[in-house]
Amino acid sequence: MPGCFQEVLTDVTENVYRDCYQLSSDNFPGMECPSWCVRKFTLKGGKQHGVDVVSIDNGHMTVVVVPTRGMNIQEAHTADLRLGWNSPVKGMVHPAYVDEEARGGLGWIEGFTELMCRCGLAFHGAPGEDFVSDNTGAQTSVMLPLHGTISNTPATRVVVRVDLGPPHALSVLGEVVDSRMFGPSYRLVSTVSTVPGSAEFTVSDRMENVGGSSSELELLYHCNYGPPLLGEGSRLLAPVQFICPRDARAKQDMATWNSYGPPEPGFVEQCYFLRMHSDRQGRTVVALADPQGDCAATIRYSVNELPAFTIWRNTAAQEDGYVTGLEPATDYPNARSFERSKGRVIELPSTGAYEVSLTFGLVVGGDQVARLRGEISSLAEGKETIVSEDPDSDYCPM
Amino acid sequence: MPGCFQEVLTDVTENVYRDCYQLSSDNFPGMECPSWCVRKFTLKGGKQHGVDVVSIDNGHMTVVVVPTRGMNIQEAHTADLRLGWNSPVKGMVHPAYVDEEARGGLGWIEGFTELMCRCGLAFHGAPGEDFVSDNTGAQTSVMLPLHGTISNTPATRVVVRVDLGPPHALSVLGEVVDSRMFGPSYRLVSTVSTVPGSAEFTVSDRMENVGGSSSELELLYHCNYGPPLLGEGSRLLAPVQFICPRDARAKQDMATWNSYGPPEPGFVEQCYFLRMHSDRQGRTVVALADPQGDCAATIRYSVNELPAFTIWRNTAAQEDGYVTGLEPATDYPNARSFERSKGRVIELPSTGAYEVSLTFGLVVGGDQVARLRGEISSLAEGKETIVSEDPDSDYCPM
Amino acid sequence: MPGCFQEVLTDVTENVYRDCYQLSSDNFPGMECPSWCVRKFTLKGGKQHGVDVVSIDNGHMTVVVVPTRGMNIQEAHTADLRLGWNSPVKGMVHPAYVDEEARGGLGWIEGFTELMCRCGLAFHGAPGEDFVSDNTGAQTSVMLPLHGTISNTPATRVVVRVDLGPPHALSVLGEVVDSRMFGPSYRLVSTVSTVPGSAEFTVSDRMENVGGSSSELELLYHCNYGPPLLGEGSRLLAPVQFICPRDARAKQDMATWNSYGPPEPGFVEQCYFLRMHSDRQGRTVVALADPQGDCAATIRYSVNELPAFTIWRNTAAQEDGYVTGLEPATDYPNARSFERSKGRVIELPSTGAYEVSLTFGLVVGGDQVARLRGEISSLAEGKETIVSEDPDSDYCPM
Repeated sequence: MPGCFQEVLTDVTENVYRDCYQLSSDNFPGMECPSWCVRKFTLKGGKQHGVDVVSIDNGHMTVVVVPTRGMNIQEAHTADLRLGWNSPVKGMVHPAYVDEEARGGLGWIEGFTELMCRCGLAFHGAPGEDFVSDNTGAQTSVMLPLHGTISNTPATRVVVRVDLGPPHALSVLGEVVDSRMFGPSYRLVSTVSTVPGSAEFTVSDRMENVGGSSSELELLYHCNYGPPLLGEGSRLLAPVQFICPRDARAKQDMATWNSYGPPEPGFVEQCYFLRMHSDRQGRTVVALADPQGDCAATIRYSVNELPAFTIWRNTAAQEDGYVTGLEPATDYPNARSFERSKGRVIELPSTGAYEVSLTFGLVVGGDQVARLRGEISSLAEGKETIVSEDPDSDYCPM
Repeated sequence: MPGCFQEVLTDVTENVYRDCYQLSSDNFPGMECPSWCVRKFTLKGGKQHGVDVVSIDNGHMTVVVVPTRGMNIQEAHTADLRLGWNSPVKGMVHPAYVDEEARGGLGWIEGFTELMCRCGLAFHGAPGEDFVSDNTGAQTSVMLPLHGTISNTPATRVVVRVDLGPPHALSVLGEVVDSRMFGPSYRLVSTVSTVPGSAEFTVSDRMENVGGSSSELELLYHCNYGPPLLGEGSRLLAPVQFICPRDARAKQDMATWNSYGPPEPGFVEQCYFLRMHSDRQGRTVVALADPQGDCAATIRYSVNELPAFTIWRNTAAQEDGYVTGLEPATDYPNARSFERSKGRVIELPSTGAYEVSLTFGLVVGGDQVARLRGEISSLAEGKETIVSEDPDSDYCPM
Repeated sequence: MPGCFQEVLTDVTENVYRDCYQLSSDNFPGMECPSWCVRKFTLKGGKQHGVDVVSIDNGHMTVVVVPTRGMNIQEAHTADLRLGWNSPVKGMVHPAYVDEEARGGLGWIEGFTELMCRCGLAFHGAPGEDFVSDNTGAQTSVMLPLHGTISNTPATRVVVRVDLGPPHALSVLGEVVDSRMFGPSYRLVSTVSTVPGSAEFTVSDRMENVGGSSSELELLYHCNYGPPLLGEGSRLLAPVQFICPRDARAKQDMATWNSYGPPEPGFVEQCYFLRMHSDRQGRTVVALADPQGDCAATIRYSVNELPAFTIWRNTAAQEDGYVTGLEPATDYPNARSFERSKGRVIELPSTGAYEVSLTFGLVVGGDQVARLRGEISSLAEGKETIVSEDPDSDYCPM
């Protein structure tokens, strides 16, 4: 000992499925850490009917994991603050209600509500034509819809795990198999873990090519923040190595790419494509600081794993989802054919795996935010920052 | 007091969901009215698996409300007669089985079984190309499928209500949120109510634009009748101000537009576009009288709220759905681009609402039918009726 | 007496639905036959959530029937051997996750996992354009997706039946209604039955046109075998009257059409189109013998009912579904317009029915396999076998 304690909540091969479940520090008398509680429940009614949810309350922060939606993270909150946003879509949407190819390939947005949703794994980004091998081996034109299928694929196995040794990390593991005849076929094994009493959680993902041939991989973490972190005067803090606007619309506000305006009805989205500086190990951090500079949401990740970064600004009316997306990714959310032409699409061999780890945090207090600001500045210190005022043809389909 | 008694059956924000529920006059000893009973149950098996139903038996007439299908009305019946029809689709279809864009945009018909189903709210009518703003603000061509999305959107909140004062109206309230990123986003609040012992029920709808910008609204009440009200010799009674056939096919039987033939295998549908006369408040009534003139189904509504009216005749074989649709609406079931060009599409501002109320009744007995006939005649008395023998280009895409 | 015992597990018109159910020889003390057990259960978790399964363990062989997927057969197994294959898609997929029109009309493959799945009933085979009557009677171009809708239509009525007289056959009856406004509308009544202690089961299907007009019928039984029956050196045994390769790809291995190679990553499928000899009553049998010739899977059927036969070879990597499909059918899996032009599409009148019966067996032991080989040879004895080395334009779209 120590080792860990674990319980299987879902396992389709064993037909295990626990509708409701609860585990807490009360089950471990003598465990020296803040009180915590992990709960599994199933949503009922409306489009959320049948959606499985696992919430991890670590005693300070609660993280809401959605196995039915590909192990996405619906939100995280403390007693005072919430990471997430107010989508015009209410609740969490069961994949049966999402037809990805609807609306000219924009059907994905009908289920778009989360703090963090994965886009991929075979493709992500804007809908676009691509050519794939069909069952006869011929190259066939297909319309790849927005952001892929992984967010609408339910987990086939869900496990809750508690480390018996300090710091007693609490984890939810989910396996999501997104496979089919004639491929591509992937397995995502995602582990969401948090330490009791902390203000952060880590998502560790392993994407495996479970098909017999190599497959392309595109992966984007769509991390979305609304009020109270997003507001007029909120700032994006990032150790920028390169930035350009996606298009003429984004160029209009290039000068203020890292600050946010108030909700504006009819606001048309703006996207910026970036690369980040990092430390020697490739670790970096970006943050969204609230208008007062009193608190910030952080995303820590590796530029070796996720070299691309996209900012999505959608400061539309509150009713329409006043939100910004911070999107570390393997490549940019353009049509896959464009990304392939730029050499940014990963070719994953059969049985090969790609691993990514991100930590989402919440920093509270002016001193802490100042320290964070310093940390981010130091990552870029003495390094070049390239700002392209115009869309760059290496990044932007023209 | 009096006030009312109410019980929440579904509320997604509170994760309230009552699988089964029953409330009856037995719960209110001393209430002076016919015995009544409201029941909530969930259908099982086949494509109806998981469909929630609320039936209101007012002691004389039972009204079957389907929250899972956008608060549509499956049927209403008394001991002797049924309002509704026999669709080739059996039971009530869960929205997960309906892909609106399938079959060239005719997927909606896979779930078409109800006495009254709403078409809309952003568009209804025949599939057709239209141009909408995409996420980048650009105008994009989209194929709008048949009859919109509201009928395949489940209610997010369902409440049963009983008036404690006479006449002790029984109501089911449902909220249906049909919203998405980049819009359009609507909330329908529908109240279905009936008075114990009566032979009618009222549907009061409020459509709100819950998006941040103005949105187009198209709304059609697809009210469908089969046997025994529909049969060879059934008559449509209506205070017609204007009528024209939709196309050459409808023109063939223009002379007998208001009477019905027997079931005919292979019969091809006929549509007529109308406007109705009304009283000074805009209230009007249309009715379908059975072949013997012994009974009639009525729809009472306001031409101010629903200026357009379409007759759909589909007197095909019984197996194929021998049925007629009486369809009061904000506009005609043509492609939205055509309706917009005629100025008939409503522009609903953000937070704006559109309200509609219809009463569905059953009139039994030759005397009562004669009185109804007189009432309808008097609405048109001394007023002009324009009969266009040909499709009119103001109403019919040519 | 004897007669039979039966129990209704699902009936949508009565809203009968038994979530779990078990019936066994223990319920019939004194019944002289091997111990047997019929179980109904519902799968949970992942894409299989809500899928109903009925397993018939006849004491020697267990047959797994899937009412939710149109009464398909997931697999059959004895203590030693399994009939079925290892699809890259795990478990059994709920139809709510299958969008047939997705991926250019190849969406059907997202749910493809079974030993025997029906393709049809209005069309099967490769996606292709066809012209159908729309609601206005006009001929409209539609894209017919792969393999039709019947496999993704849940049964509306499921009954378990036990013959009280010897040999005490055990049956599961399922009704699957695949109907819609404007048609086509079919009812499949499928009976899966097996005798206690036997190594075979029979599927008896009745397809009815429940619409008011005649409709086209295409039906293919997609029977799929992987290891251990399929392996390097497995042989297909069949009394061939005619065979041709579907295309240049199939022609490459025309010389070895009846033997199988090892798993090959990236192997591109090969199809062969055949007709079989039969006995005077039209009964025939095909078999897949394992590499050692120690056991074989058999399919016995009537060429009067199913005149067409397709071999699908997909000896790809194990991970991608190393599998062969043996496919008796009313016609070939080409686009319906092509099959119609060759006069092979059945026109089923209103209320007309088409009946098919197939028996799936497992033969174990070198002697038994040799006897089977002899039986199949004798069916072709003294009869002509036509081998077309090239695709034949009567069978293959060029």
